[in-house]
Amino acid sequence: MSETLTDPRSLEVALGSRSYPIHIGPGLLGDPGRLTPYLAGQQVMIVTNETVAPLYLERCRAGLPAGLEVRELVLPDGEATKSLASVERIWDALLEAGFNRRCTLIALGGGVIGDMVGFAAACYQRGVAFIQVPTTLLAQVDSSVGGKTGVNHPLGKNMIGAFWQPRAVLVDTDTLATLPPRELSAGLAEVIKYGLIRDAEFLAWLEESMPALRALETPSLTRAIERSCALKAEIVAEDETEQGVRALLNLGHTFGHAIEAHQGYGIWLHGEAVGAGMLMAAELSARLGWLSAEQVARTRAIIEAAALPLTAPADMSAEDFLVRMRLDKKNINSRLRLILLRELGEACVHDATPPELLGDLLASFPRA
Amino acid sequence: MSETLTDPRSLEVALGSRSYPIHIGPGLLGDPGRLTPYLAGQQVMIVTNETVAPLYLERCRAGLPAGLEVRELVLPDGEATKSLASVERIWDALLEAGFNRRCTLIALGGGVIGDMVGFAAACYQRGVAFIQVPTTLLAQVDSSVGGKTGVNHPLGKNMIGAFWQPRAVLVDTDTLATLPPRELSAGLAEVIKYGLIRDAEFLAWLEESMPALRALETPSLTRAIERSCALKAEIVAEDETEQGVRALLNLGHTFGHAIEAHQGYGIWLHGEAVGAGMLMAAELSARLGWLSAEQVARTRAIIEAAALPLTAPADMSAEDFLVRMRLDKKNINSRLRLILLRELGEACVHDATPPELLGDLLASFPRA
Repeated sequence: MSETLTDPRSLEVALGSRSYPIHIGPGLLGDPGRLTPYLAGQQVMIVTNETVAPLYLERCRAGLPAGLEVRELVLPDGEATKSLASVERIWDALLEAGFNRRCTLIALGGGVIGDMVGFAAACYQRGVAFIQVPTTLLAQVDSSVGGKTGVNHPLGKNMIGAFWQPRAVLVDTDTLATLPPRELSAGLAEVIKYGLIRDAEFLAWLEESMPALRALETPSLTRAIERSCALKAEIVAEDETEQGVRALLNLGHTFGHAIEAHQGYGIWLHGEAVGAGMLMAAELSARLGWLSAEQVARTRAIIEAAALPLTAPADMSAEDFLVRMRLDKKNINSRLRLILLRELGEACVHDATPPELLGDLLASFPRA
Repeated sequence: MSETLTDPRSLEVALGSRSYPIHIGPGLLGDPGRLTPYLAGQQVMIVTNETVAPLYLERCRAGLPAGLEVRELVLPDGEATKSLASVERIWDALLEAGFNRRCTLIALGGGVIGDMVGFAAACYQRGVAFIQVPTTLLAQVDSSVGGKTGVNHPLGKNMIGAFWQPRAVLVDTDTLATLPPRELSAGLAEVIKYGLIRDAEFLAWLEESMPALRALETPSLTRAIERSCALKAEIVAEDETEQGVRALLNLGHTFGHAIEAHQGYGIWLHGEAVGAGMLMAAELSARLGWLSAEQVARTRAIIEAAALPLTAPADMSAEDFLVRMRLDKKNINSRLRLILLRELGEACVHDATPPELLGDLLASFPRA
């Protein structure tokens, strides 16, 4: 029998002794024994949020073998939860349950849950096992893969965290059926990003497939997630701790983080901010003479097709952007480094953007 | 000219790309340029405490090259400071100063400062550089070497932390001149430990040299620190993340941590608790038929010669010990693992101590 697009796909993030698989497909979540190979011991804590718990917690638990000591922790939903205080709640729960260093944490939810639970695992007793079970498209194609974990600080997003790889990532595409359309679009921002930075062919396929993706057609979703994860896995394998090429994954993020920080986290979705940020990066790339007007138009069109913002917040001045961008982690030794596009399908790190070009872009970019 | 015992000694902790040197000797702290090779960039924060700051902060700062952006943060002294709240103060200060991921933290102080600053560095922007400048004997021979970082939780010591290696360790033996005698003894507990677990010859040398060490004679101190660091570096190089042999470094610590947790951190010094704990481990080893009465007597004598406690706290019952020991990190899957002595100079991990033997020891061990 030939494989169909509804069969689970698996790929590997190649990181030596820290390598791990990503399994993608429908119906994985309740599949008995799916999680078993990745458990470090008998103690398991599933951490999720109030939105995801009623939808998928029971199914996740049902996918665990009998006889384990399983605990559950349900946190509030939302980016505002992505704080050190929430991570402390996880640590308190682990210690109150007497969990030892052979315990396993399961992160069931979107990127906020995955980042927080990963960070909690990274620092509990100096590091315990965890498994990513992402239930949003954004988490499935981006945050659950690559080992970046952490929480926000009032002075900056993801400022406190660690590199800590999961034992496995389990992507059940069925969970997208309950995802609000706005969050689907936010996830598509990162999918588009992979095309823009590294794979022009995938970008062209996305331009055709955007209606099918927004209609949640499983074969298209599976392909988009698989290709996105494969591109991310390649990059992470080349550069686990972001010394070089991994920085390209931040296309649109320096602008996007500035928007999120200015608005207060959780007003714009991360992917929405990245959507607008990618368009800003494309326009700046055009001002540097790298992209043609037609290529910028294609970028704008696919961002629009994904129902993502094409404008910056109305109340955000060029100066507001600059103040926020100076605090960005990628801004090394006070020199502003941006991820820009040499071509559609080819990103670069650029730290010599003339300040007046950037200032012009920030002043003239449309506001909502 | 031949090298003398007052010349700086250097040794290497061999951890591949994370290898780093330990420099040991008098006068290193204010030596210009000593720290320079280990700075990641232009931004440096020296973190110390209220006791150490008036003694050595100026000298540490003087050892840095001109032209850097140097900040200082002075935290309260004591084990009670070793909390997540203190680490948050460090992160707040770094963010308020706009420090980026090429910054360097310098931990100037004892084990508490080293562990906290190391953890702060491990998780600031997912990991920045740090340098250990330990000013207590305990930190010089133990906590500054090996990359264990972290803080206490109300439910357990060092429960939150990370493995994060420093760029270098700078041990200025002159700093011991201002160390209170009780803290010198606490450091000697760890020095004795290295002899007990791995080097019978060093143990014999320590038995002879204890008066010279307590009198702060520089050649003896330098030799004791160098040999202790070398033994620790060997063990850490074999087992960075404590999957095996590194556990032997915890001789006396399961008992000692129980004492510290029961008393409330900061009442007994860590080394004092370890001193009593090593004697408990030796006595239990004798009950298992491994050590002779004469060997236990030698163990007691050297612990006594270092002016360390030979008794457990008066108010601590056998049950108090057991409750605390069950929460210990070394207690994997609820089976109590203890580090015991096969011989003087040879430790082992033992997870099959008959409960009645342990109970008898805990009941009969003298109380103060």
